[in-house]
Amino acid sequence: MGILNLELKKVVDDSYEIEIGYQLTDELVSDLEKGLVGSIRKFAVITDTNVRDLYAKPICEKLIQAGYGVELFVFAAGEKSKTRETKAMIEDAMLEKGFRRDCCVIAVGGGVVTDLAGFVAGTYGRGVPFINYATTLLAAADASVGGKTAVDTPLATNLIGLFNQPKKVYLDIACWETLPKREISSGLAETIKHACLASYDMFEFLEENMEDILRCQKFACEYIAENNCKIKYDVVMKDERESGLREILNLGHTVGRAIETVSDYRLLHGEALAIGMAAQVQLSARLGYMSEEQAERVIALYEKAGLSTAVPEYIDREALVKKLYTDKKVRDGKLRFVLQRGIGNVVEFSDGVYATPIEESLAREIIMELK
Amino acid sequence: MGILNLELKKVVDDSYEIEIGYQLTDELVSDLEKGLVGSIRKFAVITDTNVRDLYAKPICEKLIQAGYGVELFVFAAGEKSKTRETKAMIEDAMLEKGFRRDCCVIAVGGGVVTDLAGFVAGTYGRGVPFINYATTLLAAADASVGGKTAVDTPLATNLIGLFNQPKKVYLDIACWETLPKREISSGLAETIKHACLASYDMFEFLEENMEDILRCQKFACEYIAENNCKIKYDVVMKDERESGLREILNLGHTVGRAIETVSDYRLLHGEALAIGMAAQVQLSARLGYMSEEQAERVIALYEKAGLSTAVPEYIDREALVKKLYTDKKVRDGKLRFVLQRGIGNVVEFSDGVYATPIEESLAREIIMELK
Repeated sequence: MGILNLELKKVVDDSYEIEIGYQLTDELVSDLEKGLVGSIRKFAVITDTNVRDLYAKPICEKLIQAGYGVELFVFAAGEKSKTRETKAMIEDAMLEKGFRRDCCVIAVGGGVVTDLAGFVAGTYGRGVPFINYATTLLAAADASVGGKTAVDTPLATNLIGLFNQPKKVYLDIACWETLPKREISSGLAETIKHACLASYDMFEFLEENMEDILRCQKFACEYIAENNCKIKYDVVMKDERESGLREILNLGHTVGRAIETVSDYRLLHGEALAIGMAAQVQLSARLGYMSEEQAERVIALYEKAGLSTAVPEYIDREALVKKLYTDKKVRDGKLRFVLQRGIGNVVEFSDGVYATPIEESLAREIIMELK
Repeated sequence: MGILNLELKKVVDDSYEIEIGYQLTDELVSDLEKGLVGSIRKFAVITDTNVRDLYAKPICEKLIQAGYGVELFVFAAGEKSKTRETKAMIEDAMLEKGFRRDCCVIAVGGGVVTDLAGFVAGTYGRGVPFINYATTLLAAADASVGGKTAVDTPLATNLIGLFNQPKKVYLDIACWETLPKREISSGLAETIKHACLASYDMFEFLEENMEDILRCQKFACEYIAENNCKIKYDVVMKDERESGLREILNLGHTVGRAIETVSDYRLLHGEALAIGMAAQVQLSARLGYMSEEQAERVIALYEKAGLSTAVPEYIDREALVKKLYTDKKVRDGKLRFVLQRGIGNVVEFSDGVYATPIEESLAREIIMELK
């Protein structure tokens, strides 16, 4: 009989600010007082056991001093906590504490915290606002721009989640100084990837200043924080739903994500990505998109950042090849890779298409030949 | 140091069609062939054990005949299945079957199926399209317009979820004839609520034609399907994010949702809503927004639809009062109710505010006085 047309066209404004600086807790409180999240006065601060005492508790105290209602929700640090079960545990705790829809989530921590807390916020009461207070280099590089939130499942990483934009992101560079060296290096994996895909100048800066970066020198940290955001923003703004261009941010992740899973998270995300990038430049060189020399230069920069590009002994390379098929770029059962063109650019295979089908045999060959 | 401004303003078009008719499977296939979900050729049909054989399997067969890739995902029928655990189970099964981001979810069933499947689609690969094929009156009344998807948790119903608009909704009235009488009555609870809050004419139609409705006469079913959608659409279009006006759809749900939970889902949603509406009209009458006679007339219509407005013996009324606080309209720890003004209208307490704080003592009094 009948057809009803529901017109649901509207303008959505998800704009937000990223503030880069040293110790930004006062800025956070002042922004809230200026109405960053409207009249909301109840905050769920979500954090992990790594940063609870160092950053999350002081933030809670400042918020309480300012007269806000605050509860702290803590989960065990590490990618292994980025699960549906942790999300459910936080939701139940928030419900238990009486949180309803008139609240705001503040994520304090690295990429795991911001990914998970952003996802919690996105489905709590069908969506409450959230703020990211990023304490790691990886979060600064990866989690501050793009609105990607997600959890992992036994079969795949980051496949269950949401696009959800924060109300504001604070990148507190002062926190980086307290990071373990391993975390700094891991965070640099995404930074180098950004340079590889979009900026030869940045790549040179990283080559020239790697020691200062590893010692958290102010000028170097600021440069990285700002340029990571800018590159990612350029890409994301042109393609918020990851339909085409945005896939370039996935450079190195086809193998990277798979090895992260196969390692059962013994490898940090950045450590896995370094290996994935090594595979990617080998593949790009093999297909003639970059020279062997350029590929070596990328690998050398990863090593300089303290990241091994060798596949750990304990990794079953056949299992790794099989795991490639859980990649979200897979289409019609075919593997697809984003490839690098020289240094500072990616290959556009056809109009708006940046991921290309690669035969399993070739992918296997590259993986078997990795150090 | 620096602030980066991310401009993320854009036009979003979530418009879609609701098709009302008899046996719409061919229409579904034809719409897919015309590009309803673009070039996607892989479908996850999500359904429950009630409608699997009767509706979901025939739809799968038609899709397979048309050359599409189809897998069927079935969960146990009933509100008790509307959980994060069922969602995770379906996600894992979809991952196992190789579903990635290039798929579309088709929900075949009633409100529980459409709520759950829409939520699965909204977070699978950070969002894949979905289509609702609604087989019950309740789904027609409740799940076809508004984009609400959710699951229940031990502490609250529908608090974890998403606003997610389908690509199209099919309301297959032919299915209604196969519904158990209890389901028809339960579905009418939302229909009567819609009349109460927006249309005196519809209320009169329901009073005059209730017997024909209960016997699934064509003219009556069509009238209900169409008017339910129209009323809901009018409200939703004006307020997609449920910030103000949309709360009026929550009429009767403050007590209704709570009693549904306290009954441990022995009451169907509509059965619980009938009791919640009885509480609401008593409260509205007490506060002078409607006459005692009007309140009785609303209660009489629910009874005529085969719905008892009496609180079952096994309900602990004190537990019910306590459970009211899990309502999502609660603000600053205060209960808030939407109230009816006469029949066919609601009370606007101030500009754009349709829910008013009610003292717990008054809410308790009303609940204790219910039949």
